[in-house]
Amino acid sequence: MAIPWAEKFAERTSSIKSSTIRELLKVTQKPEIISFAGGLPAPELFPTERFQEACSRVLTKHSAAALQYGATEGYTPLRQMIAEKLANTGIRATVDNVLITSGSQQALDLIGKLLIDSGDRVLVEAPTYLGALQAFNVYGARYVSVPIDEDGLRTDLVEAVMQSRPKFMYVLPNFQNPAGVTLSEGRRHEIVMLSETYHVPILEDDPYGALRYEGDALPSLVSIDQQNHRRDENPFANVIHLGTFSKTLAPGLRLGWIVAAPEVISKLVQLKQGADLHTSTFNQVVAFEVARDGFLEKHIEHIRTVYGERRDVMLEALQEFFPGEVTWTRPAGGLFLWVTLPEGINSQRLFELALIENVAFVPGDPFFANSDNGRHLRLNFSNADPAHIREGIRRLARAVRSVMERHMSVVA
Amino acid sequence: MAIPWAEKFAERTSSIKSSTIRELLKVTQKPEIISFAGGLPAPELFPTERFQEACSRVLTKHSAAALQYGATEGYTPLRQMIAEKLANTGIRATVDNVLITSGSQQALDLIGKLLIDSGDRVLVEAPTYLGALQAFNVYGARYVSVPIDEDGLRTDLVEAVMQSRPKFMYVLPNFQNPAGVTLSEGRRHEIVMLSETYHVPILEDDPYGALRYEGDALPSLVSIDQQNHRRDENPFANVIHLGTFSKTLAPGLRLGWIVAAPEVISKLVQLKQGADLHTSTFNQVVAFEVARDGFLEKHIEHIRTVYGERRDVMLEALQEFFPGEVTWTRPAGGLFLWVTLPEGINSQRLFELALIENVAFVPGDPFFANSDNGRHLRLNFSNADPAHIREGIRRLARAVRSVMERHMSVVA
Repeated sequence: MAIPWAEKFAERTSSIKSSTIRELLKVTQKPEIISFAGGLPAPELFPTERFQEACSRVLTKHSAAALQYGATEGYTPLRQMIAEKLANTGIRATVDNVLITSGSQQALDLIGKLLIDSGDRVLVEAPTYLGALQAFNVYGARYVSVPIDEDGLRTDLVEAVMQSRPKFMYVLPNFQNPAGVTLSEGRRHEIVMLSETYHVPILEDDPYGALRYEGDALPSLVSIDQQNHRRDENPFANVIHLGTFSKTLAPGLRLGWIVAAPEVISKLVQLKQGADLHTSTFNQVVAFEVARDGFLEKHIEHIRTVYGERRDVMLEALQEFFPGEVTWTRPAGGLFLWVTLPEGINSQRLFELALIENVAFVPGDPFFANSDNGRHLRLNFSNADPAHIREGIRRLARAVRSVMERHMSVVA
Repeated sequence: MAIPWAEKFAERTSSIKSSTIRELLKVTQKPEIISFAGGLPAPELFPTERFQEACSRVLTKHSAAALQYGATEGYTPLRQMIAEKLANTGIRATVDNVLITSGSQQALDLIGKLLIDSGDRVLVEAPTYLGALQAFNVYGARYVSVPIDEDGLRTDLVEAVMQSRPKFMYVLPNFQNPAGVTLSEGRRHEIVMLSETYHVPILEDDPYGALRYEGDALPSLVSIDQQNHRRDENPFANVIHLGTFSKTLAPGLRLGWIVAAPEVISKLVQLKQGADLHTSTFNQVVAFEVARDGFLEKHIEHIRTVYGERRDVMLEALQEFFPGEVTWTRPAGGLFLWVTLPEGINSQRLFELALIENVAFVPGDPFFANSDNGRHLRLNFSNADPAHIREGIRRLARAVRSVMERHMSVVA
């Protein structure tokens, strides 16, 4: 059944493999399993009625434009709205700085296409968002991994690796996927200064920034960079900023955006033209109609209340059920927390036992560009309701104890 | 205002430039201009009410799934529907052969990513679809151009260029963009045989196949390849087939598909995962609900009636108004026809004069991978209504006569 020309696949495809998470998710879709594996928003929070009204209005009043081909840059009112929302968080941006993408995964792909020549190094956090590694790998990226701690990227270790001349730095400052940690304000200033000093741009990926459950918002890297420059200088001198509606409206729309200097946007527009012409006009117009008139902000408030409670339930359950040797992060927002198992305990092995207990998570290994100690797991707390979170953590704790006991008996 | 790291753009970006068409379209959006430039469907034919019903049903009954993340392969009922529709045109395919893409432009990008190593040659028609060249250029493609005539690709010239070992052949068999010509049945068999003999796969791009206004449908290249093989052999041994809803439902949805062997689909799924995770779930579910129960077929009948009439109006107007020295193709379907100016008359020059007459088209040059004589123009007949088509061709004829007179006076 083989194709007679299989040797024609491009060299870049030899390194790609299906994401571990993707394979795991297939296993974890059985109804009896409580899954902390995906990064799925809670579907019961989707603003379905508002979508109904928006679709009806769009198809009554704007159907000729909404169903037609559109500009590669995106739907102008939506770009305008995004520029205004950025202004509310202290980022100076105009419509010309905003390119709409087909989810922020496409933003990562387009940035990879724009910046990575085969063999180039990209500075990433260890661990980092797996989807970014997938996007960059195709362009032949190699990686310089810099560890994180509870205050995010260890900026004190960045200068030492600048000699390897990374093409750019990929940073998730808020409630990082997978670890849930947030880059401290001091380190934000440091990383922006390093970017300026070494002419190594920062790709600031901020899918979760709006979902904060405690404390005050910290300034974005791009806003810090803007404050460091005079107003007549390029406001996007050193930072490319990414955002998305996937966690605040609905991931099924596939709507994200890139905010960058006009000369970067114009190259990205050309690349996007070849990649998919433009992002769905219909979804852009609908998202604009859903989000407008302050609805998005009110809706985000609601999400924060619900997810904040779920985070608390998970943290309490971990405290109650997990052995004392296990540690975890305490995220101030986002969708994930990050568990570290005791030495000698492997998270892949735990995954197998967890499935027997009908609970699932993602082992930490694939989030590392280089190597890992195999003792991490990522837990999602946005998708399951509080009762299932508690029951799932109870089951997972049983699996953890079981792996630890087996390990002790082997060691003994 | 420059960014301090502009030298970091990847090497591949040095060759990309904004499509001429894209720049032209900006000029031609003034309301007083009659534009034959774009490839836009007629917006008054969009089935708006059916979309309204579909959106309402999807958001009432399927909102949790339709707004959520989905499988990279696409929405299973939609893939199933596409496989069934292919069966009706004589193509054996199952759901596992179908990958949903974000418009067929993404299909071209993913195929480029899958198959093109920098410096590889791709065999293309001269002229060919400009968007394919844009997609392939990014991966460092070079081209072997084979001319077309009224029966499509000159297959008699293909064998001679096989020595340059093209990675694949990119063929638009039906009502080709830009020339509107259709590959004859005999040549279809020839090109499939050449593919089999030389192990050079065919990328069959068929966005317009359903829009035929006269004569009988010809067998697709993939169906011919399937007939050449036993039923227990791989039904997609030599051909990758592309389709889209952009011309039959609405381009604003950005929904296309790739039909190929499972080992090709599985690599493409991995590449698509890194490129945009998956195509909008919402649009896939809505398109399925719109298309189902025979609606798509009835709707296509309606489009064929309207576009067929517009084609006839344009052909008649060309006959009535254009000088005898100008020739054009007579497409049996699709959206475009292709005009050839007399020797010495340049279509870029004509474009400037046409704008003064408030009529627009696309000069033929960008559709050639290598070089062209500069005497071609592409005219779209789907977007304007019959009265505007007639008036536009009358204006364009004035511009043509004006360029020809100036040319004669220079020669004289």
